[in-house]
Amino acid sequence: MNIYKGTGAAKGQALANVIVLREDNYEITKIQISEQAVKKEEEKLKTARASYCRELEDIYDMTVQSLGEESAQIFSAYKEIAMDDVFFAQVLKRREQEQCNVEYALQEEKKSVLKMMESIDDAYIRERAADIENVCKEIIKGILGMQTSDTGLKEQKDDFIVVAGDLSPEDTIRLDKKYLKGFVTEKGGKTSHTVILAKTLGIPAVIGVPGICDKAAGMERIYINGETGEVAGDPDEALITQYQKAKEASESQKRELEKLAQKEAITIDGYKIKICVNTGDQESLNSLDAKICDGIGLFRTEFLYMNHKGYPTEEEQFAVYQTAVQKMEGKEVVIRTLDIGGDKQLDYMELPKEANPFLGYRAIRICLDRKEMFITQLKAILRASAYGSVAIMFPMIVNLEELREAKELVKEAMRRLDSLKENYDKEIKIGVMIETPSAVLLSDKLAREADFFSIGTNDLIQYTTATDRMNEKVQYLYDSCNVSVLRAVRLVAQNAHKEGIEVSICGEAASDEMLIPLWAAMKINKLSMAQAQTMKIKYIITRLSVKEQEALCGQVLEADTMEEVKKYLHSICP
Amino acid sequence: MNIYKGTGAAKGQALANVIVLREDNYEITKIQISEQAVKKEEEKLKTARASYCRELEDIYDMTVQSLGEESAQIFSAYKEIAMDDVFFAQVLKRREQEQCNVEYALQEEKKSVLKMMESIDDAYIRERAADIENVCKEIIKGILGMQTSDTGLKEQKDDFIVVAGDLSPEDTIRLDKKYLKGFVTEKGGKTSHTVILAKTLGIPAVIGVPGICDKAAGMERIYINGETGEVAGDPDEALITQYQKAKEASESQKRELEKLAQKEAITIDGYKIKICVNTGDQESLNSLDAKICDGIGLFRTEFLYMNHKGYPTEEEQFAVYQTAVQKMEGKEVVIRTLDIGGDKQLDYMELPKEANPFLGYRAIRICLDRKEMFITQLKAILRASAYGSVAIMFPMIVNLEELREAKELVKEAMRRLDSLKENYDKEIKIGVMIETPSAVLLSDKLAREADFFSIGTNDLIQYTTATDRMNEKVQYLYDSCNVSVLRAVRLVAQNAHKEGIEVSICGEAASDEMLIPLWAAMKINKLSMAQAQTMKIKYIITRLSVKEQEALCGQVLEADTMEEVKKYLHSICP
Repeated sequence: MNIYKGTGAAKGQALANVIVLREDNYEITKIQISEQAVKKEEEKLKTARASYCRELEDIYDMTVQSLGEESAQIFSAYKEIAMDDVFFAQVLKRREQEQCNVEYALQEEKKSVLKMMESIDDAYIRERAADIENVCKEIIKGILGMQTSDTGLKEQKDDFIVVAGDLSPEDTIRLDKKYLKGFVTEKGGKTSHTVILAKTLGIPAVIGVPGICDKAAGMERIYINGETGEVAGDPDEALITQYQKAKEASESQKRELEKLAQKEAITIDGYKIKICVNTGDQESLNSLDAKICDGIGLFRTEFLYMNHKGYPTEEEQFAVYQTAVQKMEGKEVVIRTLDIGGDKQLDYMELPKEANPFLGYRAIRICLDRKEMFITQLKAILRASAYGSVAIMFPMIVNLEELREAKELVKEAMRRLDSLKENYDKEIKIGVMIETPSAVLLSDKLAREADFFSIGTNDLIQYTTATDRMNEKVQYLYDSCNVSVLRAVRLVAQNAHKEGIEVSICGEAASDEMLIPLWAAMKINKLSMAQAQTMKIKYIITRLSVKEQEALCGQVLEADTMEEVKKYLHSICP
Repeated sequence: MNIYKGTGAAKGQALANVIVLREDNYEITKIQISEQAVKKEEEKLKTARASYCRELEDIYDMTVQSLGEESAQIFSAYKEIAMDDVFFAQVLKRREQEQCNVEYALQEEKKSVLKMMESIDDAYIRERAADIENVCKEIIKGILGMQTSDTGLKEQKDDFIVVAGDLSPEDTIRLDKKYLKGFVTEKGGKTSHTVILAKTLGIPAVIGVPGICDKAAGMERIYINGETGEVAGDPDEALITQYQKAKEASESQKRELEKLAQKEAITIDGYKIKICVNTGDQESLNSLDAKICDGIGLFRTEFLYMNHKGYPTEEEQFAVYQTAVQKMEGKEVVIRTLDIGGDKQLDYMELPKEANPFLGYRAIRICLDRKEMFITQLKAILRASAYGSVAIMFPMIVNLEELREAKELVKEAMRRLDSLKENYDKEIKIGVMIETPSAVLLSDKLAREADFFSIGTNDLIQYTTATDRMNEKVQYLYDSCNVSVLRAVRLVAQNAHKEGIEVSICGEAASDEMLIPLWAAMKINKLSMAQAQTMKIKYIITRLSVKEQEALCGQVLEADTMEEVKKYLHSICP
């Protein structure tokens, strides 16, 4: 048994077969193609492109579900390139001129474009070049018939741990999640794609183990500890026993949590917090379980507009909303109207390229500008409200004017449905996402004209601290423990309660274990999160007393620094 | 006399000679170049590039002064392209291969790069292509000896009004401001470069007058009214008389204002507001007049770092700071430490390309990361403090941690100066720019550890409303009359006064006539603005009573909408 030491990047222990993932290599030679075979060559390219595009769509959907829309963006960028007809027309032209095989023409054309791009000294274009490089490589692999299944990863029937130099986004997404039990990589940072995937799947990851690929080639089974960073090849009896004990302990804790699954989240002193789920893609909709939650707290509707050739029709939308509403068996479904723009782009919407998309034309701004598109969505939501309990929520509201205008359009949608004698809930609740500092500062006024608030902490942190959460250079500022952010949440909660409306949190901070006592002290009425998080959060709430946390809340909001906030919160973590 | 009707875009009336500005046209033919003449060809390109770069530097400086750094950015982007050695090496290579004239090679190489770029379907790259197109055109004009002076604009000895289809940024900047009295364009939006320049220069502009270029060709003199949008060719006696009366009235008002130039700004009920100037380039520094203001409220230091091959030395910085400090004759000079990043980029700093630069690595974030660069600036500022009254101000502060760390670095700079026995003000005041919502929400805490606040309304509006002020699609939200923004300013002022520190405003809102009563009611201690604005603002303040405005302030901050805010403010505009 050999032991190696890396950095633990995602918690947990695992013991399973080892699979070493190495980079694909191929060589391309120029082959003379006769007139008769031209059609076949062209067909090869077409097929490879089409199948790569389909694969990207699948990968995109899977990534949205497992890692969120932001992580998935890279695949829609890839697809854009793979669908670039101008570029591929040039490839075919080159093939014709040189009378050669299509993969050779593609490789040469790629080189020529990249060389041109290199001559332009611009960081953005360099990144774009890396994308083009990757896409061409994948399509060439398709032409050569090198399928991903060749690596054997899709044929697994037993648990396995992947060992690799580094994993590309595509690599990680393609792995069969059913049998995947952990990651070990030679490179990789703590915020890499691999680590985020490991955390999402709840499996361990160890990174920064130099030379582990060569060493793992000789192992059968591998043990990894995502806390200590320990990696052991073919572990001995003692280690196996230790691992099994740890595994049993963790499983018994899991069973404990599962008991809570269908219970309500009520604190020791009797304060109930609704625990709802966030959803926003077909897969998570399918796996929804009405029994384990108090409803859908955030129904993202973007997925209906993405992977679509044009605007989805009212019927298409209605069908999806109706299914979700019926599935929730009378529990409330809060549907957020289209939140596109920012980092989410759609070709057919023809959104402008912006210098700072997070500060640009997005969400409600687009909807108030493209009124017919918006009314179509509102009509679909309203019609679904006839089948259960539905609420409408507007994203990115900045001021009262926007809320009033949006509510006017709801009325217009109602009038149109009335004239068609369609049924809908005439008393449907209309809420506001509080995710801009402006909405925080105007929350007293917004509370008078909205039926509920939902605080979108992700964007709120971004705008409050002027920090793009995707920007690694300023990641240290993007933190829900900024005193300013916590004060903003409290102010919103106070203003909501003053007007007697419900306030919920639906950003990542809603399922941050450390922050739950604080949310309870602020009397947040509802927390909405990924379904997988609900049990853990219910467990924490049932062990809390709101009364006890109130003093803490005052202390935390008077803390000087993030470090102090975290120290307070750690000191009382239940 | 013919009268035409357009849209008034910048106030004022003018009557002057007409100059029609038309697009330059040139044709390039391929010429065979002999071996002997090669050197001369290469020299031509070199000279044209160098002289274009120098011209861009001038234009850049002029634009920073007249329109601000953001408008000037386009010229540093142009310069980056003009200095791209890789591209121009390819031009020379092509010239050699084809043994042709250099302008032909440049034109062909440009075409080939643009064709490549076209094949990439990406909006950013398309914009970049337009920049490359423009730069190559200008350099070709340089090679062909087509100077801008050919248009006759630099030879003007009389007042003139420019008539054009549309004006490029370069066109507007190149005009001789001394004799320029107005603009008329066929195209152009209300926020175009031309209109902004007109407003900055205080001259009228009329836009959207179809076919005016052809019509103006036959005119000698032209009359324009920037309020009514009226344009008249060779006006008759009646119109001339009317124009002269209006001119006299406006000049008499101007004389009235000038009387106030050297007086203090004190309200009717005896409350003094310091009126300071913003400066940040050599030209505005040269024209500074200590007598007409209470000091420099915002000394931007970016210009020392821009137009520079590398970081400016301590000596270089010290020399500039010292000159400014001495020029102010004991009045306070508030020097803002480097505020680079965001939309301001510097090659030698190697800043990362960011998806949302306004939410990225900028200002104090860079300075706390690149400590030696920061300490060099702090030492230079401290040394200048031995020659007058100096204060240090940190931009983009988000929390207490940043302020504390920055203050530690000031101490480190002091220690280093002590060891060199250099003189400086040991009690130098250290202030914080309040321009992030986070700083607003923590202003009670920041006030305890800072000596003064200065509210940067430009950025504060951006972050509070999540609106990029350069993005036309969301311009309607970028408004200082957002109730949330005004509430933020009041909160900051209240927290500052609670701790007994001074609070100033140094964004555009400081010189917005309509808002002055509000600032007085909030007891803002200092307003800092472009020197040209000071008289107008002093005039308003001397006619105000703080007591009378206090009730207004309460009303405005309880308004529901921006429209209501503006109605209140208009109703009491002094």
